Amino acid sequence: MKRKIKYLKEKVKSIEVKKKNISQLLTEMKDTGFQGRKLGEVVEVWKKMLRDKNVTILLGYAGSLSTTGQWKLISWLIKNRFIDVLVSTGANISEDIIEALGYSYWKGSHLVNDRELLRENINRYYDVFGRETDYLKMTELISDFILTLKDNYPYSSREFLYLFGKWLTKKKINSIVTSAAKYGVPIFCPAIVDSPYGDAGLIAKSQGFNLILDNMKDYIEFMSLGRKIKETGVIYIGGGVPKDFIQLLAVTSNLLYPEREIPGRKAKIWRCEDGGKKLKETYYPHKYAIQITTDSPQWGGLSGCTFDEAISWGKIDEKGNFIQCYCDATIALPIVLHALAERIKFKRKGKIFF
Amino acid sequence: MKRKIKYLKEKVKSIEVKKKNISQLLTEMKDTGFQGRKLGEVVEVWKKMLRDKNVTILLGYAGSLSTTGQWKLISWLIKNRFIDVLVSTGANISEDIIEALGYSYWKGSHLVNDRELLRENINRYYDVFGRETDYLKMTELISDFILTLKDNYPYSSREFLYLFGKWLTKKKINSIVTSAAKYGVPIFCPAIVDSPYGDAGLIAKSQGFNLILDNMKDYIEFMSLGRKIKETGVIYIGGGVPKDFIQLLAVTSNLLYPEREIPGRKAKIWRCEDGGKKLKETYYPHKYAIQITTDSPQWGGLSGCTFDEAISWGKIDEKGNFIQCYCDATIALPIVLHALAERIKFKRKGKIFF
Amino acid sequence: MKRKIKYLKEKVKSIEVKKKNISQLLTEMKDTGFQGRKLGEVVEVWKKMLRDKNVTILLGYAGSLSTTGQWKLISWLIKNRFIDVLVSTGANISEDIIEALGYSYWKGSHLVNDRELLRENINRYYDVFGRETDYLKMTELISDFILTLKDNYPYSSREFLYLFGKWLTKKKINSIVTSAAKYGVPIFCPAIVDSPYGDAGLIAKSQGFNLILDNMKDYIEFMSLGRKIKETGVIYIGGGVPKDFIQLLAVTSNLLYPEREIPGRKAKIWRCEDGGKKLKETYYPHKYAIQITTDSPQWGGLSGCTFDEAISWGKIDEKGNFIQCYCDATIALPIVLHALAERIKFKRKGKIFF
Amino acid sequence: MKRKIKYLKEKVKSIEVKKKNISQLLTEMKDTGFQGRKLGEVVEVWKKMLRDKNVTILLGYAGSLSTTGQWKLISWLIKNRFIDVLVSTGANISEDIIEALGYSYWKGSHLVNDRELLRENINRYYDVFGRETDYLKMTELISDFILTLKDNYPYSSREFLYLFGKWLTKKKINSIVTSAAKYGVPIFCPAIVDSPYGDAGLIAKSQGFNLILDNMKDYIEFMSLGRKIKETGVIYIGGGVPKDFIQLLAVTSNLLYPEREIPGRKAKIWRCEDGGKKLKETYYPHKYAIQITTDSPQWGGLSGCTFDEAISWGKIDEKGNFIQCYCDATIALPIVLHALAERIKFKRKGKIFF
Repeated sequence: MKRKIKYLKEKVKSIEVKKKNISQLLTEMKDTGFQGRKLGEVVEVWKKMLRDKNVTILLGYAGSLSTTGQWKLISWLIKNRFIDVLVSTGANISEDIIEALGYSYWKGSHLVNDRELLRENINRYYDVFGRETDYLKMTELISDFILTLKDNYPYSSREFLYLFGKWLTKKKINSIVTSAAKYGVPIFCPAIVDSPYGDAGLIAKSQGFNLILDNMKDYIEFMSLGRKIKETGVIYIGGGVPKDFIQLLAVTSNLLYPEREIPGRKAKIWRCEDGGKKLKETYYPHKYAIQITTDSPQWGGLSGCTFDEAISWGKIDEKGNFIQCYCDATIALPIVLHALAERIKFKRKGKIFF
Repeated sequence: MKRKIKYLKEKVKSIEVKKKNISQLLTEMKDTGFQGRKLGEVVEVWKKMLRDKNVTILLGYAGSLSTTGQWKLISWLIKNRFIDVLVSTGANISEDIIEALGYSYWKGSHLVNDRELLRENINRYYDVFGRETDYLKMTELISDFILTLKDNYPYSSREFLYLFGKWLTKKKINSIVTSAAKYGVPIFCPAIVDSPYGDAGLIAKSQGFNLILDNMKDYIEFMSLGRKIKETGVIYIGGGVPKDFIQLLAVTSNLLYPEREIPGRKAKIWRCEDGGKKLKETYYPHKYAIQITTDSPQWGGLSGCTFDEAISWGKIDEKGNFIQCYCDATIALPIVLHALAERIKFKRKGKIFF
Repeated sequence: MKRKIKYLKEKVKSIEVKKKNISQLLTEMKDTGFQGRKLGEVVEVWKKMLRDKNVTILLGYAGSLSTTGQWKLISWLIKNRFIDVLVSTGANISEDIIEALGYSYWKGSHLVNDRELLRENINRYYDVFGRETDYLKMTELISDFILTLKDNYPYSSREFLYLFGKWLTKKKINSIVTSAAKYGVPIFCPAIVDSPYGDAGLIAKSQGFNLILDNMKDYIEFMSLGRKIKETGVIYIGGGVPKDFIQLLAVTSNLLYPEREIPGRKAKIWRCEDGGKKLKETYYPHKYAIQITTDSPQWGGLSGCTFDEAISWGKIDEKGNFIQCYCDATIALPIVLHALAERIKFKRKGKIFF
Repeated sequence: MKRKIKYLKEKVKSIEVKKKNISQLLTEMKDTGFQGRKLGEVVEVWKKMLRDKNVTILLGYAGSLSTTGQWKLISWLIKNRFIDVLVSTGANISEDIIEALGYSYWKGSHLVNDRELLRENINRYYDVFGRETDYLKMTELISDFILTLKDNYPYSSREFLYLFGKWLTKKKINSIVTSAAKYGVPIFCPAIVDSPYGDAGLIAKSQGFNLILDNMKDYIEFMSLGRKIKETGVIYIGGGVPKDFIQLLAVTSNLLYPEREIPGRKAKIWRCEDGGKKLKETYYPHKYAIQITTDSPQWGGLSGCTFDEAISWGKIDEKGNFIQCYCDATIALPIVLHALAERIKFKRKGKIFF
């Protein structure tokens, strides 16, 4: 009888259509099922994360979403310091600049003659169109910036993007990178060349400038966060490299230290036994975790894997709050952020690391 | 240059977080991309459909969604006569009755020990739990109703469900079937026995009662709608038999008539040439179409196929308004209906067919 | 230490490319991971099922796969009596007849102008094309058959399809239905009108013939299998109504009997407690289960749900052998059947029920 | 009539089960539909690519597949020089080393108590288990290698991995990296630190060694391939950074040259008009393209986007041969490679670039 009580604690409640705001609707969806419930729970976990003063919030932002009208949502998160660290693809933090330059993306169709688009110099992103010339100008803008840097100096992507943000600020060009530089949110972009940033580097190279983007420095800088923070909350829009990178913070930042323990952090100590020999490892699993993804667990990849799988790796706290919602981010992100905006009345003080 | 203008007509607009209602947010999402845009467009097409007085609206309601807190949304559509005909799975129009009987579904988890649930008489629907005893009582309620029917009389599912709705009304049991009977919305359930209705029929059979549910009568009654309507709009929550069944209205209702033309309807005449011989066929493609689905086109099935594919069949009007949004219905349905509720100020007069 | 042994029992083995047959390759894939392993395990479970003499094998065959060159695979399963009962959609057991009539399906493309196809009387099934005229002739063939039946007599789909198979045999028209009639495999088609069969019924109706297809009779005939069998193995190609229908055999065939116990079957007795009162229910969960599907668990529907979820319902034996492989059936089915053909050396004696 | 002939050229053929080898089965699947046909076509396109002497073949290898018994397949491709360049995630070219060290991955389950795995030092990859200690030893092996490198020298991932391959060869440790070094296949790994390589770099750092992995040098080396090749064929196992990186070769390698034309290559010249001003750009779209993916186009990302979308970008030749098959790589890869092994009788001479 007790066990049944364990399973049958909270009732599903059928939603009634009536006047309500976005936050209220999501609260009600939390009492339904399937991914609708998950979306409601995303707001709950995010709110808890924001309230928890010990927690540093890291956002992984994958794919190419800035072309779809989402980039101001990310800027909003930065300006309100609802996040402390951003890990992004290169596309997501460059393609937004096109709008800032006064150009546009256009509402297109995914059922179109791509050969004709090619003739018209139009690039397609599923159902969004963009002009190749605008893309090229944005790339050239970045190459102009690169030429202001130090030759042959190994930059981390964080340093590089911070300097770029400062440079854009002077030019009064608004973008995610600009906001991040202004509000003290570091951006890491582990595969930065795989984007217009790489192309801009090629242009600079063709003019004799040798840019060094040190991937290892990125990793060291990112992992050194390990000793500046107490606990962590993570939010993944998609998966990809940004998710993998942030997940690793929980388990490998300790490798930076000879003792493999992070000075000053309450660790979950772990000892791997190996034929009697004890290998000391420390884990600092993420306390809160949110993922919005369209991938699925059965394909075995990290982008779609469950946070339960991540528990086996020590990346997610088994007693933590975590929620995954299988939904296109262009649906979930605007809805969740408007609900948060309605619900969060307090000001969050962001952490400054660099 | 002209052609470029053809492609670059409407700009994508980045969403800014500020105070707005659900309908406004969806209007803004319409100017983004990917499935977020599609969700915004679903509201637009639905609104147009509601405004078009010549249009009969048919809703296909697949899967087992009533357990997840969605059933009152369907009742709301019926009560407001935002739909004229409902085609459903058996699960969707029986499992709601459990709540009406005073029982409940419970918020569970999809990561659970199902062996333990089995011991506790708990059935799992992904992350929703329900008690087997409640399920059985609902089934027995239906068998009580069956025993009030005519033995050995061939009922269509529509007749059967209408009578059931009336019977439930007398018992003051609220449900989709009850609302439909009250507001004159016929319900077709082409595979009705594949559900608690079939189980209830087995119980009746064990007591010597022989129920006939005539699948062909269903089809004839449904296709005879062809001559009672002018134009059609269709909404599919999921795919399955409900979608296939409603899609066929466009192309096979004409087979009911020796001339293969529906008296009184403006048809798109079609002549199949076959080795010189002309076979006359008439088509009445759906003018508006909406689908919310989690299936994908590449698997080749009807549940995930595009409305473009349906154009080749003559099922969807090539000049019509159609939109598909790839999203879990438990996310899309509540959000879209609340946006509609905010946006639609007029009263729609439903059509009565039976 | 013991526990680790529990988890680390069988090694993953990397596949080496060398000469091997299909069956050997699948045996090797069984020692890999993700869905490749599952595909290898499908062959294993199927083989076990075939070897187990007490087991009746039921195949659920969903979607519209006969248009894609798969139908002879199903006929092969029937002829070799690798299955005992078939539950199908109407599409799957009618669209194959087009080939038998000497017509064809054609290799098309999913990226095509559907408006042009419409003008050319070509119907598209993702990347397969078919002529509307061929479709119509197949439908008219079925209506010719219907006119040979008894007017106003309530047929089950099984009876109807058996008679149709016999009729086709006389006409020397090869198809799934023909093979099934010849080899004694009953076919159930719970939503039969949602297909060319329904259309053929409309043509017959337009000529004054009243066909009754009794859905309840289907269910009763199918559930009465409960007392003719010992144990069950199930194979699902896709999900949909065929899966749901077959799954129910495990839990509702008992409702046909006043005592709710199936005479002569070793049941798993179950007593639902309900406020002290004991409700007797009996379960006969499937011993073996295979599903090949492209749906996913997170959408909450039956087509994608795990067999673990089915354990909570008593539909799948918790100690049974079950395997789900997430893969398009047009890939998995030919490969698995060729592996089975290589591996199975014995002759299986099929069971005859009707 | 002509047009119909255009659409109805090749018939679908139903597969008959009989003795055949893997290659023959795939040839037959090429005449079916849906993803089964696509899998058959993958073999065709791959074969054409191998035969075309002007073509350099690049393989993008995403995700974490080496743990699932796939890594020897990649080694086989390298040894037979069926590919010329490999772009990989870090996981895929490090986790294979665990087996080479004499350790193993284990057949696990995706339905397991991850909390218990955590206690047992077992990491889960969907249904594959691996020991944390083995992972750590592999990481430490890499850090041993790093300590043999030049401090503060900016390595490209290609240089780094080549040297690692040489070092492993001396240690007689077999792996993808070892084969690549031996057979002259360069490996690029654009986000290399997001993997055990990054972790190994942290260990080296903790010992005072400063490794520089220059992401920009990677991009420049990779793009400089543009002038060493004639035409390109690309194969993507999954999407992610490897796909994006290789796709860019077609359109941005020209940026390395002041004239934006690649000396010695037959280019498709392109001029972007921009308000009268002409911006010269050159494109070298991939002539052959294959992708095996589990992502879907409707989510808008590059991993799932169609090659048609890529045509609009100039990345894929509109007259080229391209095919996408939606299938888990653990199914598709072994089957396709065994078919290729049966079918290809000639020896391909690989290209050497570095």
